[in-house]
Amino acid sequence: MDTTEYDIALHLSDSDRPGRYSGAFGDGWRIGNAINGGVVMAVAAAAIQRRLVADGIEHHRDPVAFSGYFLTASEPGPLTATTEVLRSGRTLTTGQVSLTQSGPRGEAVERMRALMSLGTLIADTGPLRQPDPPPMPGPDGCVASTDAPPSLLSSSSLLERLDLRLDPACVGWAVGRPTGQGEMRAWLRMADGREPDPTMLLLALDGLPPVAFDIGIPGWAPTLEFTAHVHARPARGWLQLQVTNHVLAGSMMEEDARVWDSTGALVAQSRQLCGVRVPPGWSPTA
Amino acid sequence: MDTTEYDIALHLSDSDRPGRYSGAFGDGWRIGNAINGGVVMAVAAAAIQRRLVADGIEHHRDPVAFSGYFLTASEPGPLTATTEVLRSGRTLTTGQVSLTQSGPRGEAVERMRALMSLGTLIADTGPLRQPDPPPMPGPDGCVASTDAPPSLLSSSSLLERLDLRLDPACVGWAVGRPTGQGEMRAWLRMADGREPDPTMLLLALDGLPPVAFDIGIPGWAPTLEFTAHVHARPARGWLQLQVTNHVLAGSMMEEDARVWDSTGALVAQSRQLCGVRVPPGWSPTA
Repeated sequence: MDTTEYDIALHLSDSDRPGRYSGAFGDGWRIGNAINGGVVMAVAAAAIQRRLVADGIEHHRDPVAFSGYFLTASEPGPLTATTEVLRSGRTLTTGQVSLTQSGPRGEAVERMRALMSLGTLIADTGPLRQPDPPPMPGPDGCVASTDAPPSLLSSSSLLERLDLRLDPACVGWAVGRPTGQGEMRAWLRMADGREPDPTMLLLALDGLPPVAFDIGIPGWAPTLEFTAHVHARPARGWLQLQVTNHVLAGSMMEEDARVWDSTGALVAQSRQLCGVRVPPGWSPTA
Repeated sequence: MDTTEYDIALHLSDSDRPGRYSGAFGDGWRIGNAINGGVVMAVAAAAIQRRLVADGIEHHRDPVAFSGYFLTASEPGPLTATTEVLRSGRTLTTGQVSLTQSGPRGEAVERMRALMSLGTLIADTGPLRQPDPPPMPGPDGCVASTDAPPSLLSSSSLLERLDLRLDPACVGWAVGRPTGQGEMRAWLRMADGREPDPTMLLLALDGLPPVAFDIGIPGWAPTLEFTAHVHARPARGWLQLQVTNHVLAGSMMEEDARVWDSTGALVAQSRQLCGVRVPPGWSPTA
């Protein structure tokens, strides 16, 4: 099973305590020195899914709602996921997971605490009501992330895992000309061809560069809180992403992400609150 | 201090265990037979705030992000709030709270589990970038909730706590003529004149009738997950609310809520996932 890069990243082993699992963040999922938050969330979801299998409630296997609070930056290396089942009902099971890594003196340092509801998403049934995907060029008419500046590619190994194609209308920030609109659009698939599933959508929702770049705010935008809703099982093929910003207040801003599958069904949505450093003299109409 | 209806609702007492508090949901905060989710969230936030005072980190007093997973319906009567501090940093402290009530055999039944980050919001500093409030009549040109059908008023005591004025363009559902747009707009303040504060915004964000009514889906829409972001301390006076729906998938839909204060500053936003029963033959263009 664990033959794709994504499946290897999500691999967990039982520990000496029920409901607690061991895994590792691979060096290949870094953005700068930290592990990408999308991978952290997917691993957390995998831990709860493994717990539900152990508890005999594996029919609730799909993430429906996921809320992660990021406490410290995850690093390449071993991790421990401790799960708790809060309630299991007819259509949903809700659980909690705490992801920790060892600190410098061997103490457990919590990376993320998350709550998650799981259910059973039905294949090939898109939403009854949804926003349409935005007009944009197809993947071949977009800018591949492999064309990013070498300095960015070398510092962020995550980009080797993803085949990311950015709408050329949204990449002006890369040459110092952000549009000021606060929007990024892209196509995404795994570089090794692994097809999407509901849990992978957690990774996809956090797969684009910070939308802050498009309103002229450079630098790292660490996620404080990230909530995703998964609405349907994605079809095979490319995922289409749109990330927008509507609110920036003080040193925090929101990123709203939407993912459509290759049939145009809106399969997932998210909103995150992230920290930013607004440059001196910045103006919203930059 | 606890002289307003809102402050009485949020009153908590220490228990025999540090970090665990006792309170009660009053009968006056019901929607049907259940306690309104907004009050449940405000009480949960108050419990973490009390914990941070006890821990000497009361400078992080304002909710910045709050995610609640609703497990069972809260009822009028005693409650217990058990808190945990996950991490306290320079600008934010993140905690967890579990709200329980006694079940029929005296066992603890969990009502809601929540994660929350608190910081220090600055007064009179609205967002640097935000959507403007929607055009709508002022409070005196809107429909007061006291004009709601007597059957609704008698079953939902919450409506007596709130002075709620609905935009007449969004109340067609009350007479069987939903607009199909999936939007509600309203003005809100506490009926007894208690001025808004950051924690009260959690209540305000969940204070309107289900937006499902406006797309022709009647009935109770129980919240599964609710995440709020608070961006600024609200000014005195009316709060202006807009609630929209963009996604309905299977038996779940989203409600996006925004709250502006009397100066037009966007002070809070939320998204919730709630359960709905789509009527047979329902169409999204109803």
